[in-house]
Amino acid sequence: MARLTIRIDLADGGAIGPGKARLLELIEQHGSLRRAAAAMGMSYRRGWLLLREIEDVIGAPAVTGRTGGARGGGTSLTRLGRSVLAQYRDIENEASRAVSRKLRALDRLSSTP
Amino acid sequence: MARLTIRIDLADGGAIGPGKARLLELIEQHGSLRRAAAAMGMSYRRGWLLLREIEDVIGAPAVTGRTGGARGGGTSLTRLGRSVLAQYRDIENEASRAVSRKLRALDRLSSTP
Repeated sequence: MARLTIRIDLADGGAIGPGKARLLELIEQHGSLRRAAAAMGMSYRRGWLLLREIEDVIGAPAVTGRTGGARGGGTSLTRLGRSVLAQYRDIENEASRAVSRKLRALDRLSSTP
Repeated sequence: MARLTIRIDLADGGAIGPGKARLLELIEQHGSLRRAAAAMGMSYRRGWLLLREIEDVIGAPAVTGRTGGARGGGTSLTRLGRSVLAQYRDIENEASRAVSRKLRALDRLSSTP
């Protein structure tokens, strides 16, 4: 079935989209920025830059603990980081539910021969 | 206020997002793929490729009339092209309305000093 992905452009100019949300999720899951970046096929540097962008948007740290080191590990989300991620997923779910019938109609249209 | 942008991944693998929707809108507005692409800061070739992607997704022509020529003009959307665009905007509006309260909450969070 058709699936909705959202990007939220905030009033103050920052944005949160699927890449940033996924990075936060994977940091929480792996306990490591390095491993989270790798799971997204990104270099550590690109992951680090994306995390910086997230922190610029929320104006505070999104992760706590070691973010560098050879092996990484011991990194988790701050309360704010967790809250932003949860709100993003909540908005995504609610938006998807609201338009599920219309998404199905669009699916039928595109699969008409 | 925070604003929602959506991408719709269809069941059969194609996707429709803000770039494709905007291109269709601008083709209708300018009557020309060349001018629509220019309005998005794209080369004619990139606009043409994006239009091809749109037509791959919907499995039929999205525009009718001349798409080439030095000056362009005389191009408009097919009924299907117009329908896909209208459905995309409708889904975007309905999704945005459904989460407007939660978007405002996220705005407050990110602007907290």
